[in-house]
Amino acid sequence: MTANDPGRHPDRHPDQHPEKDRPWVMRTYAGHSTAAASNALYRTNLAKGQTGLSVAFDLPTQTGYDPDESLSRGEVGKVGVPIPHLGEMRRLFEDIPLSEMNTSMTINATAMWLLALYQVVAEEQDPQADPSQVAHRLTGTTQNDIVKEYLSRGTYVFPPEHSLRLITDLIAYTVSEIPSWNPINISSYHLQEAGATPTQELAYALCTAISVLDAVKASGQVADDDFGKVVGRISFFVNAGVRFVEEMCKMRAFVELWDELTRERYGVLDPAMRRFRYGVQVNSLGLTEAQPENNVPRIVLEMLGVTLSKGARARAVQLPAWNEALGLPRPWDQQWSLRLQQVLAFESDLLEYDDLFAGSRVVEAKVAELVAGARAEMDRVQALGGAVAAVESGYMKQELVSSHAARRARIESGEEIVVGVNRYQETAPSPLTADLDTAVQAADPEAERAAVESLRAWRAQRDEPAVTEALARLAADAKTEANLMPATLAAARAGATTGEWTTTLREVFGEFRAPTGVGGAVAVTAAGRAADELAAVRRRVRETGAELGGRLRLLVGKPGLDGHSNGAEQVAVRARDAGFEVVYQGIRLTPEQIVAAAVAEDVHCVGLSILSGSHMELVPAVLVAMEEAGIGEVPVVVGGIIPESDARRLIEAGVSAVYTPKDFGLTEIMNGIVEVIREAYDLV
Amino acid sequence: MTANDPGRHPDRHPDQHPEKDRPWVMRTYAGHSTAAASNALYRTNLAKGQTGLSVAFDLPTQTGYDPDESLSRGEVGKVGVPIPHLGEMRRLFEDIPLSEMNTSMTINATAMWLLALYQVVAEEQDPQADPSQVAHRLTGTTQNDIVKEYLSRGTYVFPPEHSLRLITDLIAYTVSEIPSWNPINISSYHLQEAGATPTQELAYALCTAISVLDAVKASGQVADDDFGKVVGRISFFVNAGVRFVEEMCKMRAFVELWDELTRERYGVLDPAMRRFRYGVQVNSLGLTEAQPENNVPRIVLEMLGVTLSKGARARAVQLPAWNEALGLPRPWDQQWSLRLQQVLAFESDLLEYDDLFAGSRVVEAKVAELVAGARAEMDRVQALGGAVAAVESGYMKQELVSSHAARRARIESGEEIVVGVNRYQETAPSPLTADLDTAVQAADPEAERAAVESLRAWRAQRDEPAVTEALARLAADAKTEANLMPATLAAARAGATTGEWTTTLREVFGEFRAPTGVGGAVAVTAAGRAADELAAVRRRVRETGAELGGRLRLLVGKPGLDGHSNGAEQVAVRARDAGFEVVYQGIRLTPEQIVAAAVAEDVHCVGLSILSGSHMELVPAVLVAMEEAGIGEVPVVVGGIIPESDARRLIEAGVSAVYTPKDFGLTEIMNGIVEVIREAYDLV
Repeated sequence: MTANDPGRHPDRHPDQHPEKDRPWVMRTYAGHSTAAASNALYRTNLAKGQTGLSVAFDLPTQTGYDPDESLSRGEVGKVGVPIPHLGEMRRLFEDIPLSEMNTSMTINATAMWLLALYQVVAEEQDPQADPSQVAHRLTGTTQNDIVKEYLSRGTYVFPPEHSLRLITDLIAYTVSEIPSWNPINISSYHLQEAGATPTQELAYALCTAISVLDAVKASGQVADDDFGKVVGRISFFVNAGVRFVEEMCKMRAFVELWDELTRERYGVLDPAMRRFRYGVQVNSLGLTEAQPENNVPRIVLEMLGVTLSKGARARAVQLPAWNEALGLPRPWDQQWSLRLQQVLAFESDLLEYDDLFAGSRVVEAKVAELVAGARAEMDRVQALGGAVAAVESGYMKQELVSSHAARRARIESGEEIVVGVNRYQETAPSPLTADLDTAVQAADPEAERAAVESLRAWRAQRDEPAVTEALARLAADAKTEANLMPATLAAARAGATTGEWTTTLREVFGEFRAPTGVGGAVAVTAAGRAADELAAVRRRVRETGAELGGRLRLLVGKPGLDGHSNGAEQVAVRARDAGFEVVYQGIRLTPEQIVAAAVAEDVHCVGLSILSGSHMELVPAVLVAMEEAGIGEVPVVVGGIIPESDARRLIEAGVSAVYTPKDFGLTEIMNGIVEVIREAYDLV
Repeated sequence: MTANDPGRHPDRHPDQHPEKDRPWVMRTYAGHSTAAASNALYRTNLAKGQTGLSVAFDLPTQTGYDPDESLSRGEVGKVGVPIPHLGEMRRLFEDIPLSEMNTSMTINATAMWLLALYQVVAEEQDPQADPSQVAHRLTGTTQNDIVKEYLSRGTYVFPPEHSLRLITDLIAYTVSEIPSWNPINISSYHLQEAGATPTQELAYALCTAISVLDAVKASGQVADDDFGKVVGRISFFVNAGVRFVEEMCKMRAFVELWDELTRERYGVLDPAMRRFRYGVQVNSLGLTEAQPENNVPRIVLEMLGVTLSKGARARAVQLPAWNEALGLPRPWDQQWSLRLQQVLAFESDLLEYDDLFAGSRVVEAKVAELVAGARAEMDRVQALGGAVAAVESGYMKQELVSSHAARRARIESGEEIVVGVNRYQETAPSPLTADLDTAVQAADPEAERAAVESLRAWRAQRDEPAVTEALARLAADAKTEANLMPATLAAARAGATTGEWTTTLREVFGEFRAPTGVGGAVAVTAAGRAADELAAVRRRVRETGAELGGRLRLLVGKPGLDGHSNGAEQVAVRARDAGFEVVYQGIRLTPEQIVAAAVAEDVHCVGLSILSGSHMELVPAVLVAMEEAGIGEVPVVVGGIIPESDARRLIEAGVSAVYTPKDFGLTEIMNGIVEVIREAYDLV
């Protein structure tokens, strides 16, 4: 059917679309409990029409701890699958031929290690083939973007310069040895989760790309003639919120800016190497615990932002499940998110058309506005010394915390509507959440024990001297400028563990604690009712402090490995605005470290934030440590993704209050904390 | 924020949108059981943020039968609310001030009667006001489009010329007395449900508009100077399927063609009077019983087709519920459909932009193609004498049945993908449908008894001579060229019933049976596996006929008032293609009429199609009548929206097979029917 051949029923046969676009790769971010359980889930998902895999690793694997280390307690197998050694990587991909798969791995600080394990498993799967040919066939992505980890996700390990070296080495290695691999997936995704506006998302992601490309160039590992290939392998991982028209324009702006940057800054002449290639996970920030079925239309609209434009369409899409704000999705929930993609790609006619917005005056104007704003912000960051410097100085983090605080304030004031949260709260009882505890997947309580056992068995059977030797070589190479991938592959083959690889490099590189952004964040000038409410809480905080003989002190703590600190930061900022003296030391602290700070600062209340699902292990551990430290009377409040039945158990265990995502009013939470303090110190 | 004022964070505050478009009117098509129950539902829906009402009437009310008439048996309160008299209309809108409401009424043959009841209730609600002022304030819509009833929905009563007169009278009356009312909502909606392609939807709706406007002009009831106002009050009710890009272009084509038509054919000079105004209910045809949660993304995409273009945006939207293919939606299901609209209108940024596609080359080309195709088809219909003539001759119906058959064939062959139906059938168990019988609303079994009692009580208290006199005036006016609205209002005030108003006019105008479109429908030339399967069934039909001594005869019957004949027509067409001799007499037959036909034609099998939910009353009635007529051995198969537990009960009652929307393979159904026949006549 063409416009030139109207025929009798020009639109009766919508089947002839010689130019129909190929659908994007469809994935689900998945992995939990054990490698065996995750493998079963992957195979089911692939049978349902998923066309790629996206591996979620647990926090110990992401931050380089073995399951038997103390910081891993309660975190093993929670937010993803534990891969402590090669044997578990084998199990993860059993009966999934890696040479035919397109696998995305959300892994950063330990990206090089996990890619090495992946490559070795691929070689083992195909013992007849020449190993280098196996590597040449592999397709997929390692996230490998540490800059955004400092800013939002918090799974960094090493200081920036060493992180950049690992990134650079991985890129240099894959460009020659795994040429179809995306060695880095620069993630503005997490920036949006941390509050970034579209302009910030554009600017900070592109500045990160500049840092990385400059570092690869400076490393001298890639011949000048091959540099276009490096540029061509850079991919991005973006976010898409419910403001889908702006998101669609943002993607067009990315395409335009990347084309310009790669041409002008890096002199790439081949347009194919300048193409902006990206994958997407749509927004979690806007998903709600209240009336969670409303997340389905949100997710559909978010998917549209990154697929509507043929000229700026995502290469790979993974969608969260409708119940992500409630807990871990079940197989049916993940299936539904896959079906959302399939309905759009296969039932709708979207892929039959060329770019719908080429020529659109409204879209062109909006894209131009975003491009101009992003250029201005990029200039600012580059003037500060680039992305890494702007991370180290705290500039970027502060900007994000401020943007996020502004958004929270708009929602609290009702200026920004969130259906079911600050408007249209009335609801009929939902059959989807009739039993909240079965509306999500229960994590396997045996996962930690299983991982520890697997680790012991693995260590018992391996060739210890070979491991020691491999790790010694890794340490030696780390002190030189050698590419670390060969030593890493050798350690993987010798049977080293994830914790051992990381510890070896930690000993050479040292560790790092990123700026929290809380101190410098701009206070939100609330207006109207919101301002009155905040003023009332401030009075109450002041009075209560006076009654207790000083200023009220609140410790905000993030125990465990969970680095999703956006919530904790917002609580800290609002607490400061409400007149509390706030003690916030950032992410990844042990219960003992938190309690020590509480004692040292003589705080009136301890607030714990945990989003990884490890609250039932970590909160009791803090309570016990407080009792032992003699501050058992200091009240504890907890915030996070906490199912109702767990909340009840925490209250029974002595916690004073539990806040979940449906408590969107930060001022109200502050009010709750003052009341908790008054009650604890008998001021009621 | 403007492009001229980039500021520090040009996109941080997305709140200033002085030009932000007003959201469309949000409705839910609702009504069931009794006026009191429907009133409670409406008030709950309004409290949840719905901004208008859309009344679903039951089939007796739509086709003009009182609840105690025999054709009403089993249908009272099923697909909508029963309104047999003024008292029930009062109850329906108790505590809902009609002068502030925007009410859409899906009512056609009896539209004038229901509007009269509505106007009288509005006057009663405001006894202090001048009645004519009350009428001037009313806003809303009566569907009042009989042409599409002949083509697809089947709730027509009178022959075309008299139907056109009722339409004309209603328009002429409202243009002067209820000037903000939309007196007609020309419904291409039902044409798409009946299989129309976008071109057919455009052409047939616009040809219907021409018939109506020509008739109003010819009636001489509106002064030439006021004719622009008539044009300005014509509104449309369209459908939107999951091919949302094409649907969006279709809406732009409607805008273009309507502007041209009203300017050129009717000389309307005021652009405001030429504006294409429309409401939408999105597609039910594409909603599936299999994996019904996939209907949610379908509905979201369908809503986008009619909202994405600011220049062709719907004025009012109502969305079906995700479980419509399973049965009657519950309040939560309806709430969810409302929330889909609210997320789009209030959380997304769609309404902040001017027309996104102005200037788009791809969209402009597609719109031009649709416009050209629609013009050609309009010319064809006008050459046949216009819409009414093309209905009477059967042309339009045949074209629709053929288009629908082509679509069914594409789905059966897999050329058109329906996720969960002909692709990706694998599914995890769904918590939404874990208990299918509670996943939908149970109809109130007492509704019929309550309506009959209300009717008796109403008759007992009314002034009989006044009713007789009012109906006599109505009959007298019907024989002249007088506008029938004054006599109808008088009958409403006097206390006449819905059945009495209709019977009075039936006696003057006569009744009508529309062409079924089955005889002339073009057979689909199936190819490949589909052709082989059909050939195999055809052989089996021929052999079985030979064994039974003749050609196999299948009666396809639609008992009751349900006029949704698309499914029955497709079964009839495929049965004919499979070699059956098909007896299909159209819609709205009593069980006795169906059994008489089965006896007269000596059929080998009776197939009944019921979509109104009345299967538990109507099917047993047919079985009893067959037994009494001595053909109890003839097997009966049933198709429709039939919950699993009802299906079990029907099988126990003697039905041989039950088919529901998930049985999408028509050839497979034919095969099933042959096997049912073989078993019934002991040929197995």
